[in-house]
Amino acid sequence: MTDVLDFAKRLIAAPSVTPATGAVFDAMEELLVPLGFTVTRFTRGDGETGTPEAPVENLFAIRRGPPGSKHFAFAGHLDVVPPGEGWASGAFEPEIRGDLLYGRGAVDMKGAIACMAAAVADVPEDAGTVSFIITGDEEGPALHGTRALIDWMRDHGEQPDLCLVGEPTSVNRLGDMMKIGRRGSVNIWLEVEGTQGHVAYPHLADNPIPKLVAMLAELDALVLDEGTDWFQPSNLEITDLEVGNTAHNVIPAMAKARISIRFNDTHSGASLSEKVVAIAKKHGGTALPIVSGEPFLTPPGAFSAIIAEAVKAETGVDPEPSTTGGTSDARFLRAVCPVIEFGLVNATMHKRDEAVAVEDLRVLARIYARIVKAALA
Amino acid sequence: MTDVLDFAKRLIAAPSVTPATGAVFDAMEELLVPLGFTVTRFTRGDGETGTPEAPVENLFAIRRGPPGSKHFAFAGHLDVVPPGEGWASGAFEPEIRGDLLYGRGAVDMKGAIACMAAAVADVPEDAGTVSFIITGDEEGPALHGTRALIDWMRDHGEQPDLCLVGEPTSVNRLGDMMKIGRRGSVNIWLEVEGTQGHVAYPHLADNPIPKLVAMLAELDALVLDEGTDWFQPSNLEITDLEVGNTAHNVIPAMAKARISIRFNDTHSGASLSEKVVAIAKKHGGTALPIVSGEPFLTPPGAFSAIIAEAVKAETGVDPEPSTTGGTSDARFLRAVCPVIEFGLVNATMHKRDEAVAVEDLRVLARIYARIVKAALA
Ligand SMILES: [Zn+2]
Ligand SMILES: [Zn+2]
Repeated sequence: MTDVLDFAKRLIAAPSVTPATGAVFDAMEELLVPLGFTVTRFTRGDGETGTPEAPVENLFAIRRGPPGSKHFAFAGHLDVVPPGEGWASGAFEPEIRGDLLYGRGAVDMKGAIACMAAAVADVPEDAGTVSFIITGDEEGPALHGTRALIDWMRDHGEQPDLCLVGEPTSVNRLGDMMKIGRRGSVNIWLEVEGTQGHVAYPHLADNPIPKLVAMLAELDALVLDEGTDWFQPSNLEITDLEVGNTAHNVIPAMAKARISIRFNDTHSGASLSEKVVAIAKKHGGTALPIVSGEPFLTPPGAFSAIIAEAVKAETGVDPEPSTTGGTSDARFLRAVCPVIEFGLVNATMHKRDEAVAVEDLRVLARIYARIVKAALA
Repeated sequence: MTDVLDFAKRLIAAPSVTPATGAVFDAMEELLVPLGFTVTRFTRGDGETGTPEAPVENLFAIRRGPPGSKHFAFAGHLDVVPPGEGWASGAFEPEIRGDLLYGRGAVDMKGAIACMAAAVADVPEDAGTVSFIITGDEEGPALHGTRALIDWMRDHGEQPDLCLVGEPTSVNRLGDMMKIGRRGSVNIWLEVEGTQGHVAYPHLADNPIPKLVAMLAELDALVLDEGTDWFQPSNLEITDLEVGNTAHNVIPAMAKARISIRFNDTHSGASLSEKVVAIAKKHGGTALPIVSGEPFLTPPGAFSAIIAEAVKAETGVDPEPSTTGGTSDARFLRAVCPVIEFGLVNATMHKRDEAVAVEDLRVLARIYARIVKAALA
């Protein structure tokens, strides 16, 4: 099999702190073109660095099978979180020490993208259509990343039948977990306005804080659901309180809070927003929800069975179908086709000295090759 | 009667934003010495301007009556709050327009101090002992102000029998209210510590905010008392909330709040602190109380009757004995002797274009003279 280790090193060696453009996409294109892929790259966003409108590069690559053949898509991101300080070797200088390959993105997820490329090298061109949906902004605001790719694909009539996202879903050993769904996420900004005054004359003021406290107590006591077969119960966390009143004798005019809800598919961002807005209103306040992702679920079935069989064949492990954890770009891709996430061990993701076992890269490339072949069959 | 208006202008013309030292005390000394007073001035505090240890000047002046005569004390402050912007005339350039004398301190309380001085000019020296307890720090931290004067008096064996504080207690017209007591005040800083984490993995975190919310809900629901014959019910206000978490997906490690309690004489600073500390502890948090004043009450009796009679004689008004409003230096003087506050109309205190009716200065000087004479009789 093509040297997945070499692929991984080439991707890691191109610095690509989110949002990513340029060199890392050049490296990706250089991997894919020799494998028979037609590569399209485009950049979205024209704002300043550091703003949500900063430029983001995206790549769609396709190798078409015979007319009428199935279309399997790999999805992922080439941007990485900032490396931070204190690495034993350069974060963007891939280095093997012992059994591990070190470098930012080793597991999240340049390593997995290298495995995808190595895998397709092993899949005959006539087996079917394979594509890569690769963004440079998954770790950032994700405004112009996978969403833009999905728009581009729709406009160009590209419609995969199945999509695998290479996020590092494995927990203790390669293959122990795949994500068949993710919870949705909504952040809600709460405000209560009152009338400022002096604590000695409370009848002339209207303290907004007790109203906010009562509102938060009611929100905290909510039981959103008991969970489902595939999802844990939805969860609400109060994440911030803000009044900013430094005057000890002053009743403030405004009190604010923020909550974050991770929710399963018994809710939608809109249904939860409506519920919280009503509670806020009841307590004399307002609520501004921003839904950052709807939940998705690809219920266990043919697709998860293909993945499980491939994993079992290469590792002997039965992957647990899970819906825990944060969000990923699968929240957007769900609108295109059934999507499941499966990738490397996530223990070092986003951390100093991020590293992947070299052997895991080789095994994952073989697993991915099995999945593509089975999915196209 | 000595020209109280001239006295007031001389005091207002000496800028004395809290904490005050120097010129305004020179002016005060120049008023009192010709009236037969022995003046002692001393400065406390050696810190930088703007810190609680900034220098504060204090003045004790006494005119002794015959041996064994009674001792009546006037108390007040020559410092003023900052004038702010937008005055029609200079805040420290006393100016009469229409019936009013404009200037910072006109009512709070250089005007009243001028009335005190004018009053004693009208009291025969053999009527008894009269003193002035005048600080340059009532509007500020009040660390080195009246407290230092009380220490000095104790060390020098000066023990008034009655004390009148010249705060602007009148509300709608001169004479309509005196303060026979003030509520105590305690500010309490509340904290709950938790364990930071990601909202997607709440089981790995310990969110301190719901505990703080439950603590605040319990505190807000407290009924401290129903009030007394002379005091309104004690009141608790939540004055600040603080988490300072800007990361939407992070459960914070710490949540803070501040409360302010104004309390009557059914409580002490210590008893309330103990109660709040216990509630904070019950909800997994801590409470740090800072008592800024205990309540005081000089129940209606001989002293208030003297004041009421003097007011009635000069204005026809029956002053209401009240315990409402903020704290004053009477909270310290209560430890020395019975103390009541009575002074000018407070409508413009601490405001732009602070002003006093010239006629009110003349009437208040006559009221104060009646009070001194009756108190010393
Ligand atoms: Zn990732
Ligand atoms: Zn005052």
